[in-house]
Amino acid sequence: MEEGNQSHTVSDDSIKALDLARQVRCIVKLGGAAITCKNELETIHEENLATVSSHLRKTMVSGSSSSKIIGMDWSKRPGQSDIASIADDFGEQEVGLASPFIVVHGAGSFGHFQASKSGVHKGGLGRSLVKAGFVATRISVTSLNLQIVRALAREGIPSVGMSPFSCGWSTCERNIAAVDLHGVSKAINFGFVPVLHGDAVFDDSLGCTILSGDVIIRHLAEHLKPDYVVFLTDVLGVYDRPPSEPNAVLLREIVVGEDGRWSVLQPIMHNSNTEVEITVAAHDTTGGMVTKISEAAMIAKLGIEVYIVKAATDHSLRALSGKIRGKIPDDWLGTVIRFSR
Amino acid sequence: MEEGNQSHTVSDDSIKALDLARQVRCIVKLGGAAITCKNELETIHEENLATVSSHLRKTMVSGSSSSKIIGMDWSKRPGQSDIASIADDFGEQEVGLASPFIVVHGAGSFGHFQASKSGVHKGGLGRSLVKAGFVATRISVTSLNLQIVRALAREGIPSVGMSPFSCGWSTCERNIAAVDLHGVSKAINFGFVPVLHGDAVFDDSLGCTILSGDVIIRHLAEHLKPDYVVFLTDVLGVYDRPPSEPNAVLLREIVVGEDGRWSVLQPIMHNSNTEVEITVAAHDTTGGMVTKISEAAMIAKLGIEVYIVKAATDHSLRALSGKIRGKIPDDWLGTVIRFSR
Repeated sequence: MEEGNQSHTVSDDSIKALDLARQVRCIVKLGGAAITCKNELETIHEENLATVSSHLRKTMVSGSSSSKIIGMDWSKRPGQSDIASIADDFGEQEVGLASPFIVVHGAGSFGHFQASKSGVHKGGLGRSLVKAGFVATRISVTSLNLQIVRALAREGIPSVGMSPFSCGWSTCERNIAAVDLHGVSKAINFGFVPVLHGDAVFDDSLGCTILSGDVIIRHLAEHLKPDYVVFLTDVLGVYDRPPSEPNAVLLREIVVGEDGRWSVLQPIMHNSNTEVEITVAAHDTTGGMVTKISEAAMIAKLGIEVYIVKAATDHSLRALSGKIRGKIPDDWLGTVIRFSR
Repeated sequence: MEEGNQSHTVSDDSIKALDLARQVRCIVKLGGAAITCKNELETIHEENLATVSSHLRKTMVSGSSSSKIIGMDWSKRPGQSDIASIADDFGEQEVGLASPFIVVHGAGSFGHFQASKSGVHKGGLGRSLVKAGFVATRISVTSLNLQIVRALAREGIPSVGMSPFSCGWSTCERNIAAVDLHGVSKAINFGFVPVLHGDAVFDDSLGCTILSGDVIIRHLAEHLKPDYVVFLTDVLGVYDRPPSEPNAVLLREIVVGEDGRWSVLQPIMHNSNTEVEITVAAHDTTGGMVTKISEAAMIAKLGIEVYIVKAATDHSLRALSGKIRGKIPDDWLGTVIRFSR
C-alpha cells in the first residue's frame, strides 16, 4: 500500500478544528513487512505482532509492569470454546494510558494482491475490475485491521479500529483532499488508541486510489503534533543500499534542512550525499524506502523526531519508550531523522 | 443490540447537507436473529446469510439473472489455498446497481455478550470493565460486519463496511447527537452499497452507549428518504403475541396515524387495539418487538412503507423487490406498516 501521494495541499477549511485535550505522545507505524509474512498471502507474522503488541503495552499502559493484563478481546478464538470467564475479574481500577498513542499499519501481504491485480490506485471505478478490486482491497485491509486491533486488545490496550475510508478520508489526484480528525481526537480524549491503516479511498478526480499508511501518518503528525513518530519495519533502519547487499551501511542519523533536503550526519559517509540518494532510490524498487524517507523527512521538518527501527527488537522498544530522544545511545541500532536549521 | 434510543432530537446543524445524486431505493435491516445463530456465541447462520445475499443480488444488481456473478471477495477462505484465479475473468462491463440500497445489520450472537457483560449501554468509560467492554463489543460487531460484507461481495454486490463509530455517529443521553452522512451518500453516488451496523459509540453525556441498528435505520430513512424499508427477521412478521404461543395471529397491515399511534388494519382483530398493544409489549421482554414497531412506525410516519418479513424466504424476496408496494398480495406473509392520514 505504498502508493505515493507526493504533494500535500489540503485546504484549511477541509480540516475542522480539533479539540484535543491531551498531547499525543507517539504515532507508531506498524510496517506491513514487519507484521505480515510478505510472501504468504494474507498471513500475519504472529510472533512479531505479539511482541510488538507487548512492547506497545509496556510503553502505553500505566503501571503495566506491576498489574496483570486486562484483556479486551472477548471474542471466540480458534481452539477456545468459551469466553465467559474472561470478563469476570475486573476491579474498579481505571485502565489508564500513560499518554496517548496512535497506531497506523500498512498492508503487507493483505490488500496488496487485490490492489495491484485490479489497479485500484489508478482509479476508474466505472470498470468492473476496479470496482471489484476496491471492494476486495477493503475487505483484505479491514480484515488485517481487525486482527491487529484484537492483538492489541489482548494486551490490554484499549484499541479501536478506524478505517480511513469510513472516517471520511478522501483524495483528489492522490493528494489528501478531505479528512475529519474529530473521530480520532475524540477517541484519544476518551482514552482509546485509534488504529488506522492504508486503505482504498475515493478520489475526487480519479474515482478511487490507495492512501498509504505513511501518508496518513504524515497528515496525522502535521495536525496532531506528536512528540515523536516511530516506523517499525523488517530491517534495522535505513541503509545506504539494499540491506541484503554486502557492505550495506546503516544510516544512524539523517538531518533534514529547511529546504526539505536531507543528508546523512552519522556515520560519516565516504561517498557524497547525492550518491547515497541514488543508491537508496535503487532500493526503492523493492522496498518503497524513498517514499518512506521523504514522508519521514516531511514529518521531521515539523520539528518531530522520527525513528525507523526493526520491529519486535529491544531497539524498537527503546524507540517507542522515547529513550532515544535527544541523544542516540551508542548501542542503539536504528535510524533517527530530525530537523536541523 | 436493541438498546432503546427513544426520542430523537438532532440539531439541524449537526447534519450536514447531503449531495445525493441518486434516490435510495431501499434500506434493508438484516436482523441479528436472522443471520446469526442466536444461542451460539459469534456464530453466523451461514445458510440464511447466503440466501439473503443472493436475494439482495437479485434485487440490486442489474441483469443479475442473466450474467454470471462477479465475485468481489478475493480474500483467502478456509480450505482454499489460492485466490489468484478469481480476478482473471473480468470483462469491461460495468457492475451496475439497478438502484441504490443500504444495508444495516444487527448483532445477534455477536457483541451482545460483550455489551451486556460490561454494561456498555449504561456508559461510564472511567471503569475498566466498561472500557474493556467497549473495545470487546466493537471487535465482535466489526468482525460480524466484515463477514457480512464478504458474503455480499461474494454475490457480486459492491459492498463497503462503514462502522457508525468510525463514521462519526455519536449520541447524547442515548439520542443521536452527531452524524455525518457524507460518507454514506458518497459511497452511494459511486455505486457502492454501504453496510452499517449496531455499534458501541461515544455518548456526550454517559461516555458511551450502544446505538442499535433499528435507530440507525430510522435516522437514515429520515434523511435519505428511501422508497421503502425492509426488516428481515427470524419470524414471519409481527404477531399479536409471541409467535410460539398457540393462536398467535400474524398482523398483516398496521397503519400509523398523524399522532404516531398505530392500529391493526388487517386482520380485523376481535380484541381492541389496546389489548393487542399490551400482548405485543409482553412479547418485548424476549424479542424487542415493541422497539422495532415503534421505530418502524416512525419511519412509516415519514410516508415510507415498512415491511417486516422472515429472512431467506420467497416472502422477503418479494418485499425486497418492491412487489408488495401499494397492495399486499393474498399469498404474501409478512407485516406492512404504513402511514394513514
